[in-house]
Amino acid sequence: MAKIAVLGYGTVGSGVYHVIKTNSGIVEKNANEKIEIKYVLDLRDFPGDPVEDVLTHNFEDIINDSEISVVVEVMGGLRPAYEFTKRCLESGKSVCTSNKELVAEHGAELIETAEKHGVTYLFEASVGGGIPIIRTLISSITSERILEIKGILNGTTNYMLTKMSKEGLEYGDVLKEAQEKGYAERNPSADVEGHDACRKISILMSLALEGQVDYKDVHTEGITEITKTDMEYAAAIGKEIKLLGVGKNSKEGSYVMVAPFLVGDESPLYGVRGVFNGICITGNMLGEVMFYGKGAGKEATAAAVVSDVIDAVRNKINPKRIKWACEKVALLPFENIPQSKLIRIESLDTEAGKKAVESVFGNMDFIQLENHDDEFAFISPKQSEAELDEKLSMLLNKDNIDNILGTIRIEE
Amino acid sequence: MAKIAVLGYGTVGSGVYHVIKTNSGIVEKNANEKIEIKYVLDLRDFPGDPVEDVLTHNFEDIINDSEISVVVEVMGGLRPAYEFTKRCLESGKSVCTSNKELVAEHGAELIETAEKHGVTYLFEASVGGGIPIIRTLISSITSERILEIKGILNGTTNYMLTKMSKEGLEYGDVLKEAQEKGYAERNPSADVEGHDACRKISILMSLALEGQVDYKDVHTEGITEITKTDMEYAAAIGKEIKLLGVGKNSKEGSYVMVAPFLVGDESPLYGVRGVFNGICITGNMLGEVMFYGKGAGKEATAAAVVSDVIDAVRNKINPKRIKWACEKVALLPFENIPQSKLIRIESLDTEAGKKAVESVFGNMDFIQLENHDDEFAFISPKQSEAELDEKLSMLLNKDNIDNILGTIRIEE
Repeated sequence: MAKIAVLGYGTVGSGVYHVIKTNSGIVEKNANEKIEIKYVLDLRDFPGDPVEDVLTHNFEDIINDSEISVVVEVMGGLRPAYEFTKRCLESGKSVCTSNKELVAEHGAELIETAEKHGVTYLFEASVGGGIPIIRTLISSITSERILEIKGILNGTTNYMLTKMSKEGLEYGDVLKEAQEKGYAERNPSADVEGHDACRKISILMSLALEGQVDYKDVHTEGITEITKTDMEYAAAIGKEIKLLGVGKNSKEGSYVMVAPFLVGDESPLYGVRGVFNGICITGNMLGEVMFYGKGAGKEATAAAVVSDVIDAVRNKINPKRIKWACEKVALLPFENIPQSKLIRIESLDTEAGKKAVESVFGNMDFIQLENHDDEFAFISPKQSEAELDEKLSMLLNKDNIDNILGTIRIEE
Repeated sequence: MAKIAVLGYGTVGSGVYHVIKTNSGIVEKNANEKIEIKYVLDLRDFPGDPVEDVLTHNFEDIINDSEISVVVEVMGGLRPAYEFTKRCLESGKSVCTSNKELVAEHGAELIETAEKHGVTYLFEASVGGGIPIIRTLISSITSERILEIKGILNGTTNYMLTKMSKEGLEYGDVLKEAQEKGYAERNPSADVEGHDACRKISILMSLALEGQVDYKDVHTEGITEITKTDMEYAAAIGKEIKLLGVGKNSKEGSYVMVAPFLVGDESPLYGVRGVFNGICITGNMLGEVMFYGKGAGKEATAAAVVSDVIDAVRNKINPKRIKWACEKVALLPFENIPQSKLIRIESLDTEAGKKAVESVFGNMDFIQLENHDDEFAFISPKQSEAELDEKLSMLLNKDNIDNILGTIRIEE
């Protein structure tokens, strides 16, 4: 019998309680022993909830109980989750978490602490909800040089972009509806400004590169500037706009970024819509594989946490070693990354405006939407951000180029 | 240093050799020791190939060498692969394989043999090529009751169906082309009659149900009867025809089948085209997750085999226990499975024919293709195979129903 504690009885915490109770037989069979929740830590009371029997308000109850071998940390945020996790590991308790902020910030250090004390720090649920992507990176894709990880990592923004695309709505209206439905937070910035996706791609790339990809080094753009007209351009070229986390690893070095991309139907990410996540991994032998599923949701995320608990219980004697060193990985400067973009140009005389574009970029195919007489777009050839910025500055000085209305990267 | 032997220097065998040589550093790091190929067994000679240095024609060299801790069996077929595998396991050597025929037929027994001798029998590459689906079932989806596995498991037939759909070609022409390109064998029956997909879904469902799903019990239909006109009906209702392996596990019992299905774009399998595989797993907590990638190919399959080798080396002391008992799982009779189908009716007087259909099935929406005046189709309500067959017999006795041209199941 393994006794565990759960820190936090919010959405994921109550989900963990539910999964362990509902699937107790399966959990026991796979862990090779019964798993019992001895404590749930939360500051609140839950009168009438069966959790009352095991509820405590005091973390010391847990840390001082030598029967507890595994602790589930699903509080979120850095404080006090970091101290609690660190103390648990130091006292020989494995920790399983869904806390992406903490993993992105202190993952390498906590893995090291765990190893030092002969236990494990597991975080399957921190990326992709129920999709078993972390375990795949650690345990399955082991004979590969990983060349690329690319994914739709945030369900809220994917839901919003899908809705804008399918229903022709503006960003603000879709955000309002997502907030009403509870898909987006009242303060949505972590999702819509790309910070959540940034933490997730940083975790994945840290595992791929076996060092610390610092999320603060990752160039991150959100979806707040995406408009209904951008969606019309996307449709006109047979693509959809998705917020992607992208990490590449080549001989020249590695880079990581988060930004909206135009994705075509030759990509398996094209069909990933609504609240779903999709993560593509390209290996030097494997080619491209994709993992798809709901990236959030109480039970899916909880199921991923419980799989980690089973792992921790099963491997008590021989805990899993995760390669993620504390040393920071140096990323290539963002400005050097070659990319092609859809560029929207405002021009009262679009025919003259197109000539001006060609005087800077050479011959181009232009995209002219119906009902938009005062603008057009083109797809810039692949070049570095720095080169493109320079050309766009030149362009802005030309006659008949009134403004650059926006640029969106093309996925490839 | 772990010394291994490879049985068979065909496509996958030479791929394994290539992956271990090319990615030797990564392989060593993940296995925690260097991996050296000491023998490759093949009856043929390979003059000038570097494999010559380690080539043997005699299996006894391998079985008698106590230095060999892991054997890769990539010969295919049942004989002598079964005897070789059994003898390796009995002499304390783990075996890693891509041989789906052998795994489907003797998997449970060989796992038992391995456990008895403190080693492992691993078979990641037997399903889905490089997609890490077996390891996911064994190691990741451990807190779940698996409710359904559904997948495009055969790249050859998916390539053919995609080609028929996109280019409006007939089955025979596409088969010929696939054979010329080397995607289909000269005797294509294992692929086109669904036997390959059947073995794969049987392996996956055996792992999900932890008992022997005998592939001989699985109702299996291939794609040989699919026509260009079927593809036109599919397009008319916004669906695509895919050969699916389907396993369901409910309170009433389990069933497994392989057949062509009409798949709509609400399914993540809809976008799985060409030589790609896609496998959906639905858990009672997790919801639906999908795994996608190239289902075959020398390097992808070899990479999956090498991941197993790394697992076997890394877990020498504490080998993985795989739950797949020898006892046969009783499957629900195929005739009881409720399904809805697209039914194509030949009728010289289609208006009268449609009335005849409604006299048996009640009010229906009919699908009438242009340029097909002598036939129409409808989608039957969800009912058991047995009930539907009875109704179709009644229908055939009606006036103005000249023939039933075909039926295709609807995926849901």
